Amino acid sequence: MHVKDVVVTPVAFADHPLLNSMGVHQPFALRSILQVDFGDGLVGLGESYGDDAFLSLLDVVATAVIGLDVLDLNGLRRCVAATVGEATFRDRHGLTGAASGPKTLASLCSAFEVAFLDAQGKLTGRRVSDLLGGTVREAVAFSAYLFYKWGAHPGQPEDDWGEALDADGVVRQARRMIEQYGFSSLKLKGGVLPPDDELEAVVELARAFPDLPLRWDPNAVWTVPTSCRVAKATAGILEYLEDPTSGRIGMAEVAREAPMPLATNMCVVSFPDIPEAIELGSIGVLLSDHHYWGGPRPTQVVADICETFGIGLSMHSNSHLGISLAAMVHTAASTPHLTYACDTHWPWKDEDVIVDGVLTFVDGEVAVPSGPGLGVELDPDALGRLHEQYVRSGIRRRDDTTYFRTVHPDFSPDLNRW
Amino acid sequence: MHVKDVVVTPVAFADHPLLNSMGVHQPFALRSILQVDFGDGLVGLGESYGDDAFLSLLDVVATAVIGLDVLDLNGLRRCVAATVGEATFRDRHGLTGAASGPKTLASLCSAFEVAFLDAQGKLTGRRVSDLLGGTVREAVAFSAYLFYKWGAHPGQPEDDWGEALDADGVVRQARRMIEQYGFSSLKLKGGVLPPDDELEAVVELARAFPDLPLRWDPNAVWTVPTSCRVAKATAGILEYLEDPTSGRIGMAEVAREAPMPLATNMCVVSFPDIPEAIELGSIGVLLSDHHYWGGPRPTQVVADICETFGIGLSMHSNSHLGISLAAMVHTAASTPHLTYACDTHWPWKDEDVIVDGVLTFVDGEVAVPSGPGLGVELDPDALGRLHEQYVRSGIRRRDDTTYFRTVHPDFSPDLNRW
Repeated sequence: MHVKDVVVTPVAFADHPLLNSMGVHQPFALRSILQVDFGDGLVGLGESYGDDAFLSLLDVVATAVIGLDVLDLNGLRRCVAATVGEATFRDRHGLTGAASGPKTLASLCSAFEVAFLDAQGKLTGRRVSDLLGGTVREAVAFSAYLFYKWGAHPGQPEDDWGEALDADGVVRQARRMIEQYGFSSLKLKGGVLPPDDELEAVVELARAFPDLPLRWDPNAVWTVPTSCRVAKATAGILEYLEDPTSGRIGMAEVAREAPMPLATNMCVVSFPDIPEAIELGSIGVLLSDHHYWGGPRPTQVVADICETFGIGLSMHSNSHLGISLAAMVHTAASTPHLTYACDTHWPWKDEDVIVDGVLTFVDGEVAVPSGPGLGVELDPDALGRLHEQYVRSGIRRRDDTTYFRTVHPDFSPDLNRW
Repeated sequence: MHVKDVVVTPVAFADHPLLNSMGVHQPFALRSILQVDFGDGLVGLGESYGDDAFLSLLDVVATAVIGLDVLDLNGLRRCVAATVGEATFRDRHGLTGAASGPKTLASLCSAFEVAFLDAQGKLTGRRVSDLLGGTVREAVAFSAYLFYKWGAHPGQPEDDWGEALDADGVVRQARRMIEQYGFSSLKLKGGVLPPDDELEAVVELARAFPDLPLRWDPNAVWTVPTSCRVAKATAGILEYLEDPTSGRIGMAEVAREAPMPLATNMCVVSFPDIPEAIELGSIGVLLSDHHYWGGPRPTQVVADICETFGIGLSMHSNSHLGISLAAMVHTAASTPHLTYACDTHWPWKDEDVIVDGVLTFVDGEVAVPSGPGLGVELDPDALGRLHEQYVRSGIRRRDDTTYFRTVHPDFSPDLNRW
């Protein structure tokens, strides 16, 4: 079976005003939905970023992959490299580390690799997690992803999560997440308030949920001294501290002082970043992400590298829909070395492109879908609606900073700002 | 499809009196042949070591894997670990580094992983190299594996290769190998004569075949100073120098002085060995071997690790039959980061368990077999003959040293002896 046609559909789904170090989530989050048609009714699904610059690259690759065999993931990599060359996709949010050629190629490969794997599964009647070497866990644990947030997008009515700008708001949010999804670990997206204000929320979370492992991710807005101070202040409270400061050198300095492991999805985001991080001892936990590591298979290689070098593994999440969650679940389910619950933005969305009901959270875990391939089905009407929403939204790239400046014109999203 | 039955058949094939640092090859080389039966006529083939201690472990695993799904390579690993625990297979030749629990588990997994992959291919009508991520090369280059050798086993008539105990003999052997198989690179197994005597042969080989890359492998019988001296004396002659001295620390000392990369299949032989070798800079080239790295898939991970850390990749060979050669070819064909021709003992055997004709050398390369799975077929009569030969031979473990001592009673196979 060979690729006959590829359809890339940009979609937008309503998002909440979630705050982070770069600003605030826009009213709509963008994604690209891939349908890779292998003929005879065999269509593999993929999902990735929806920024216009990324869509342009996806479109170029979409033409180039015509004729590739459904098994040929190595050919896919060659094809993407030959087509895109040195092109570098630079996102506007910077929350997943530096842009680079290798990361761009990996991101493009990933969207297609997921679709190829989905098609392989449909062709053989097997789940992607089985094809990826075997399902080592039938359900994947996720962490509650807590955000400081506005109560509403400017000019809009308040959303049903309400405002969370202090410890009380964050604890309230955590309580609802736990009640609704059963999460048994917590992650606070920080980098929004000065570190001591956020520390209050972290301490309150630990007090309110003493049995739940807790992480804190300020997205590298602290200096090395601040990071060291905060790390010591949260000894015994955090299971890991994520990206307190920027860069592998700074992270290594903090790592030497911190009583807990440091995690990253910013200073190690593609294979060329790994050797220096290991040499310096920058990290104790890597947050993998199949979207930018090249797809599920390279993400498994990352896990094997982490296991080899004694580094823990968790999983990063951007705002995503159901195809991505399914791919995350299959990847995590077939990765023996996964040492922490994964991140997901899932609770922050109310609409999707897939038929409802397959991906559900029970006790904070998502069971591996039982159907062949990814086990999720595209809902053409929903795809159409979310594409229409994309067209109408006028949003063409994620840009949390510009949106935040509509309210706080002087905001500057500097690294190491505190 | 799940494992219904496993048949492990020990076989012996006639071998030549090839000399190495540990002694000399016995008249017969031992292998185990695996037939993993998934029912409905689906049988996957594997091949590995035939030493009695390894066969005992294979037999234990053979019972434990009953019921495993054909895709479940992760389950295979769990099953082997649970069954064999801390058992350590200690070979008697020591030519592939230290024995360890992880290496033992990986070796046992490998034999079955190959059989599972063969079955997956037969089930889907696809080649193993396609299933392993896609065939990046349709033919795999091998190196001529030159040996110092006796003309005959003691008490036997001379074999048709004749004696090779000096530079002339080695050059003559190389000429025949090149004429017969088309090899375009050369490897001399050293560690037999004092280094300066072997250096003569190396210089003569380089003079006789100036366009062919050349390697030299004394299996760690030199001290660090000798290794440094020889490395400098072969500047511009060797593409790499393999295991001149023992251990990752000694190798790193030599690596700092040597003008060419150092290669190993002795100081880095399982995943736990990798971090120190990278930290110390012990090696520039890793010789992978699916037989002890856990199978084709872990061997691909090793390649990815090497690529990530800027280390070259070649492939090691023990004496083997056609199932192993097929597995080596499929693994190499689907591994993008393979930077040198692979090793093989193929020319040194005259009998096999597979139906003839699929694996042939053209210009030193073996084309990926086109049939499903490994693409090789077991010949039941040949399997029976080689099993009978195993029974009659009385050899139950590879022991080059004891055999060598029947001629040279005072021989001591010390590392770093020169």
